[in-house]
Amino acid sequence: MASKRVGKHTWSYSGQVRILAGAAVAGPKEGEGQLKGKFDHTYPDLYAEQDSWEKAERKMMEDAVNKAVEKAGLQMNQIDTFLAGDLLNQNISASFTARQNQLPLIGMFGACSASMLTLSTGAALVDAGFSDHAVVAVSSHNATAERQYRYPTEYGGQKPPTAQWTVTGSGAGVVGRGTTGPILRYATMGKVVDMGVKNPFDMGAAMAPAAAETIEVHFQDTGLTPADYDLIITGDLAGVGHPIATELLAKKGLELGDIFQDCGLMIYNDEQESFAGASGCASSALVMYAHILEEMNQGRLSRVMVVATGALMNPVSYQQGESIPCIAHAVTLETDVVSGGEKG
Amino acid sequence: MASKRVGKHTWSYSGQVRILAGAAVAGPKEGEGQLKGKFDHTYPDLYAEQDSWEKAERKMMEDAVNKAVEKAGLQMNQIDTFLAGDLLNQNISASFTARQNQLPLIGMFGACSASMLTLSTGAALVDAGFSDHAVVAVSSHNATAERQYRYPTEYGGQKPPTAQWTVTGSGAGVVGRGTTGPILRYATMGKVVDMGVKNPFDMGAAMAPAAAETIEVHFQDTGLTPADYDLIITGDLAGVGHPIATELLAKKGLELGDIFQDCGLMIYNDEQESFAGASGCASSALVMYAHILEEMNQGRLSRVMVVATGALMNPVSYQQGESIPCIAHAVTLETDVVSGGEKG
Repeated sequence: MASKRVGKHTWSYSGQVRILAGAAVAGPKEGEGQLKGKFDHTYPDLYAEQDSWEKAERKMMEDAVNKAVEKAGLQMNQIDTFLAGDLLNQNISASFTARQNQLPLIGMFGACSASMLTLSTGAALVDAGFSDHAVVAVSSHNATAERQYRYPTEYGGQKPPTAQWTVTGSGAGVVGRGTTGPILRYATMGKVVDMGVKNPFDMGAAMAPAAAETIEVHFQDTGLTPADYDLIITGDLAGVGHPIATELLAKKGLELGDIFQDCGLMIYNDEQESFAGASGCASSALVMYAHILEEMNQGRLSRVMVVATGALMNPVSYQQGESIPCIAHAVTLETDVVSGGEKG
Repeated sequence: MASKRVGKHTWSYSGQVRILAGAAVAGPKEGEGQLKGKFDHTYPDLYAEQDSWEKAERKMMEDAVNKAVEKAGLQMNQIDTFLAGDLLNQNISASFTARQNQLPLIGMFGACSASMLTLSTGAALVDAGFSDHAVVAVSSHNATAERQYRYPTEYGGQKPPTAQWTVTGSGAGVVGRGTTGPILRYATMGKVVDMGVKNPFDMGAAMAPAAAETIEVHFQDTGLTPADYDLIITGDLAGVGHPIATELLAKKGLELGDIFQDCGLMIYNDEQESFAGASGCASSALVMYAHILEEMNQGRLSRVMVVATGALMNPVSYQQGESIPCIAHAVTLETDVVSGGEKG
C-alpha cells in the first residue's frame, strides 16, 4: 500500500474524490448578512418550527443533509456513511440527525474545527474505498450555544468586544467520486496548540496560534507556497484572532496578504451586532458550502485552503482553571483547471 | 480503487493492519474485579494524584496511551494520528490528552461505542496509507460521569437495579502494519437505533437493539455465520441488556449461545456493588486491551467480534422528553492461524 501521507501530518488524496454537492441552511440573522441569498434555506426564526432550540438545530442539520444529497442527484440509500459533529454536549444534533436519516454514523468532535474534521475524514474513507458516498455535516445554533456554554439568554449577560457571535445554521457536503465539484487534494490534521489563553470571551486569540501552526505545517509537508493558493481561509478567528494569525504567519516568513481571509468575518455585515465576528461550527461550514463551493464551481476560485479552528475546552475545564486547548484542521481543494482533469 | 466495503455497512480491511499493542489502566474498584492483575496500572484512588476527577480521567488516558506506545516498541514521534473519545462534554479527556502528547487529534464521539469507533476508523486510516501508526484511546471515570450526567455524588442519589456502574479507566491501542498482534478484519459501522426507551437508568435495555442490529448486519454483509467466531462480545449491555440482545438475535435466527458475552459483565465480581453491571467507554476498552488482546496473542482466542454500544442522548435531550438514540459499532479481529499469515 502506497503511503497517502506527505510529511508528518498531511493526507494526500488521490485526486479522484470531490465534493459532489453541498448545502447550507441558516438562521434569520445570517440570512440578512453578507451571504444573503446564497443559502439553500433561511429560517424566519431560531425555532425552525420546532418547540426547542435544540430541536431546531438538529432540524437544520437534517435539512442541510437532505438538500445536499438531493443536489448531488442521489437518494439517501446511496449514501453509506455520515460523518457529523456539533457543539452540543454528546453531539446530540449529529446523533438525532442520524436517527432521522438512518445512515451509519461516525460521530466526530472538534468544536468549530468539525467542519474540516468531518470533510477530511470523510474524504479519506471515500478515497480509500471504504465509502462510496459519504455525507459530512456540522451545525451550530446561537441560542443552544449560549445556554450551554454561557448564560441563559434571558439573563442578558454583557459581553466584551472580543467575544464572537455563534452562527445559527448547518452546512453539509456529499463526498464521492464523480466528474463535477472541487477535487479534494490535501488535508493537514492539526495537533493541539495551547498558548495559555484562558478567556472564553476571546476565542479568536486563543485559536489563532493553532491556525498559524497548521498552515505552516501544511507548507512544510507539501512543499507548496502561499502562491499556490487563491484563497486561504480560517474558520472563525474573527476580528481579534485573524490579525494575530496573520502576524504569527508573517513571523514564520509566510506573508499571505489579501488571499488570507476568515469565514468569521464573512457572515455578518457591519450593521449587525456580532462583537468581533462569527463563530461556531456553522461559521466555516456556511462559507464553505454556500459560498466557496459555488465560487470554485463557477471558476472564480481554483485553489483553496480552508483551515477550521476549534476551541476544545468545556465550562468545567474553564472553571477548574485550565487554559483553552485549540486545534485547526485544514482541507485543500482545487478545480479541474488546476489539476488537469477533464470536466464531465 | 477497489472497494474496501462489503455489503452496505461493513468495511473490509486488507489483512495487513494489526493491533500492535494495547494498554489498559483502571481505577481501584476495577482493579479488584474480575480482571484483577491484568491491567498495566491500577490507581489506588479515583484521583490518580490529580486535584480533580476530570484531571484524573485525562491522566488515565495519557498513561494508557504512553504505555501502549511503549509496549509497541515505538516512540511517540513515530505515531502520526491520535483518535480518541470519552464521555465528558466536549471530549475534554481526549483533547487535553492530545495537548499533552502533541499528536494530530481526530476527536470522535460515540458515547460508549467510542472504543470501536476509534479503532475502526484508525484501522481504516492505516489500512489506506494515510497513517503509519495510529493510537486509539477512550476513557471513562465513575465520578466525572456521575457529576455530569446525574447528580453530585455527595447527594447520594439512589438508583434502581437496572442502572449500571460507569467504569473508571482508560484503554489504548496502537494500530499499524507489523508481524505481531491480532489482525483487523472487518468493521461494521452502526446506524442509530431508537426503540423509544426513555429511562437513563436502563441504558442496557435501550442499547440492546442497536447491538443486535449491528451483529445481524455484519453477518448479512459478510456472509459469515456465528460459527465463524470464538467470541462475540458486546460493550456494556450488562445484566439487563445482554439477555434482551440475546433474545432479539434469536428471533432473527441467530443463536449465539456461549460465545455471546458482554464486557459489562466481566469487569466487576459478584461481591462488588455494580447494579446491572459495568458501563462507560472503558468497559469495552478495558476488556479489549487488558484481556481479549492477550487471549488472542496467546492463541486462546482466534476470531473475535467486539460490538461496542453507545447511548447518544444528553441530559437536555432527556429533559426535553426525547428517547435515547443508540448505536453499536463492531470490529472483528483474527489471529494469524486463522488468516493463514506467518508470525514474525
